[in-house]
Amino acid sequence: MFAGGRGACYDSTKLMRAEIVSIGSELLLGQIVDTNAAFIARHLAAIGLDLFHKVAVGDNVTRVAAALTTALGRADVVITTGGLGPTADDVTREAVAEATGRPLVLVPELLQEIEAFFRTRGFTLSPSNQKQAYIPEGAIPVSNPVGTAPCFIVEQGDRVLISLPGVPREMEFLLSGRVIPYVRERFRLRGIIVSRILRSCGLGESRVGEILGDYMTGSANPTVGTMAHLGQVDVRIAAKAGDEAAARALIAPVEAEIRRRLGDLVFGADAETLEDVVATGLRAREWTLTLLESGTGGSVAERLTGAPGAGDRVQALVMAAEAAQRCLGVTQGSVAEFAAAVRVWGKSDLGSATIIDAPEGEVHATRIGVATPSGAAAHAYRLGGDLRQVRVRASVMTLDRLRRTLATGSA
Amino acid sequence: MFAGGRGACYDSTKLMRAEIVSIGSELLLGQIVDTNAAFIARHLAAIGLDLFHKVAVGDNVTRVAAALTTALGRADVVITTGGLGPTADDVTREAVAEATGRPLVLVPELLQEIEAFFRTRGFTLSPSNQKQAYIPEGAIPVSNPVGTAPCFIVEQGDRVLISLPGVPREMEFLLSGRVIPYVRERFRLRGIIVSRILRSCGLGESRVGEILGDYMTGSANPTVGTMAHLGQVDVRIAAKAGDEAAARALIAPVEAEIRRRLGDLVFGADAETLEDVVATGLRAREWTLTLLESGTGGSVAERLTGAPGAGDRVQALVMAAEAAQRCLGVTQGSVAEFAAAVRVWGKSDLGSATIIDAPEGEVHATRIGVATPSGAAAHAYRLGGDLRQVRVRASVMTLDRLRRTLATGSA
Repeated sequence: MFAGGRGACYDSTKLMRAEIVSIGSELLLGQIVDTNAAFIARHLAAIGLDLFHKVAVGDNVTRVAAALTTALGRADVVITTGGLGPTADDVTREAVAEATGRPLVLVPELLQEIEAFFRTRGFTLSPSNQKQAYIPEGAIPVSNPVGTAPCFIVEQGDRVLISLPGVPREMEFLLSGRVIPYVRERFRLRGIIVSRILRSCGLGESRVGEILGDYMTGSANPTVGTMAHLGQVDVRIAAKAGDEAAARALIAPVEAEIRRRLGDLVFGADAETLEDVVATGLRAREWTLTLLESGTGGSVAERLTGAPGAGDRVQALVMAAEAAQRCLGVTQGSVAEFAAAVRVWGKSDLGSATIIDAPEGEVHATRIGVATPSGAAAHAYRLGGDLRQVRVRASVMTLDRLRRTLATGSA
Repeated sequence: MFAGGRGACYDSTKLMRAEIVSIGSELLLGQIVDTNAAFIARHLAAIGLDLFHKVAVGDNVTRVAAALTTALGRADVVITTGGLGPTADDVTREAVAEATGRPLVLVPELLQEIEAFFRTRGFTLSPSNQKQAYIPEGAIPVSNPVGTAPCFIVEQGDRVLISLPGVPREMEFLLSGRVIPYVRERFRLRGIIVSRILRSCGLGESRVGEILGDYMTGSANPTVGTMAHLGQVDVRIAAKAGDEAAARALIAPVEAEIRRRLGDLVFGADAETLEDVVATGLRAREWTLTLLESGTGGSVAERLTGAPGAGDRVQALVMAAEAAQRCLGVTQGSVAEFAAAVRVWGKSDLGSATIIDAPEGEVHATRIGVATPSGAAAHAYRLGGDLRQVRVRASVMTLDRLRRTLATGSA
């Protein structure tokens, strides 16, 4: 950000209202789902802003400007996403200019940043990209190191209007890193909602709900809720307090008791993924891993190599079971033998084999083997659902087996 | 539906406007993504209704009623989703009653249906479920055979307000089977919007925008717009006409000219993905493919094996370049040699090698080789961004090279 928020004097006890305006005809044609709005909503809730309306409008200057005028009439903080691109159908700049009565002006620093972004990537700047360096007069420019669409903040009386790009990665980076700190500072927000998410694997959502039933119905602050993904259940503990430390103090005893009840089903917390835990385990033991994936299409490798520090410790053979049997010299064909053989073939400390058999009806027999220097173990499951779901669940179960193996050092 | 639409006399050439109001505090907390609105939007677009606004509000009677009043003031068709459940925070019925000035009345037939739904499932009706049999006076009840929340239609002057449940499966069933036919009949809709999406790979969005600039700014029907993904740009051509054939006739010459300008950058259309095109090419030639992935973590295999029919034609070696060099017996180390070697190793018709080198600053040197029975070719790129982006772009480029190779039969 070139300039910080100027922090006027606000009554911090007043209820602060926010509104999100998503811009893009593709939203109104239903061609994309508005995941940005949900991401922004979560971050606004976390700093105690009340979101009363979420609106989507198409790429039409008049309608976007009207939506912004309505939003500025009923919300203290208005956040737009989308319509900041270089093409003719990107109209957010013009609409903000119209709704706030400010002409668009060129910001040389933004132009330089956009030029630098193109230069380092070996592209030439097209004339349409220059448009992205124009923002409403008097707006605070916010540079975008992860893309070419800069964002900007218009302080309009005691209201603020913040325009973010529509590309999720850019929007997320700018919202978390720039916009949320700005809004907290500008409105001196002290109320905060802190969420702690415990991630579990191995039980279904209804079982987890039964184990934690008293918290889910009887606890007002923090609240406890569950969210199911394929093969995983997240438990969210959310506390409201005056500051983060007070919120965390409310969460701590509830988290301790939930961890006690769920035991080693809980593999991590907050943004931690199963693959992160496996990657951490590999680094801690200084182990390498070779995966055999048969039927999962390499999805275990794809997830695991994306985790920090795992890229150079993991390799994989993605192959039909029959071809792998020949390639690895497997004789009996048990999944433990596959795991041990791929471990030797890959010259690694740990080996795993995930084999999904052809379905019988709706059920895919799925075998997972893990081999360490001291031995190998096998696990068998029957997974229902379509192949995509079965792949995801088999990947989750393989990662779960690997993290348990890495925790103890033996399969 | 107990009663059909009464089909008043409408001017079918008039532009009909629609608005979606999604109801539920979970949407404003960002706990769920509003996939319902996208589903409804697609179905409205397909029958030629223009969706100008999509709004989400929380479970608050006053705010929902205000949103409905605004919507009825600017749209001919207002569709709500959510807030029809049995619990206290389900306020849609009350809000519709307030916005349309009609009291809620019990509809005995609906109560019987709800009771029957519970009876056949062996549940007992709770008193709160009775609430679901109340709808605004004079509204057309629409029975819900797939759940307990009935939907209803209020014909308010020349406008209609339609309330659907929030459970996606129920909403989708009622929208497609009941609501869309009703709306078409009621407004004698003959108009339809047909979208055609051309998918391209190889040029950035701003370059594509320049090549198609005259269409993007100068064409009213069909309209032309672009959407960028990592490494790909979609071009959307949307035409409005009296029926599907007429819409397709408007699209055809524009599509032909856009295809002429973009040439073989266009790899597919509509829902077709790059991996679908490669899978189709493999099936057509009855070829198998072995991939070497070094630095991409198996993401090419992960995408490709998910495409219909590719699962048993594709295998992969996911491995660091040095380890792959030893494993495959590569001597010189060119990416074409890697591709040829992995092709032989995997006993397949086609081989490809994708090697991402360690980054220099923000730039990852990326090499892609493809080998066929008749020879091998190599390509080198410099990709900027974080590793996740580079992986996606390298995967896209590998799939693009493979589809070009499969089109001609040689690398």
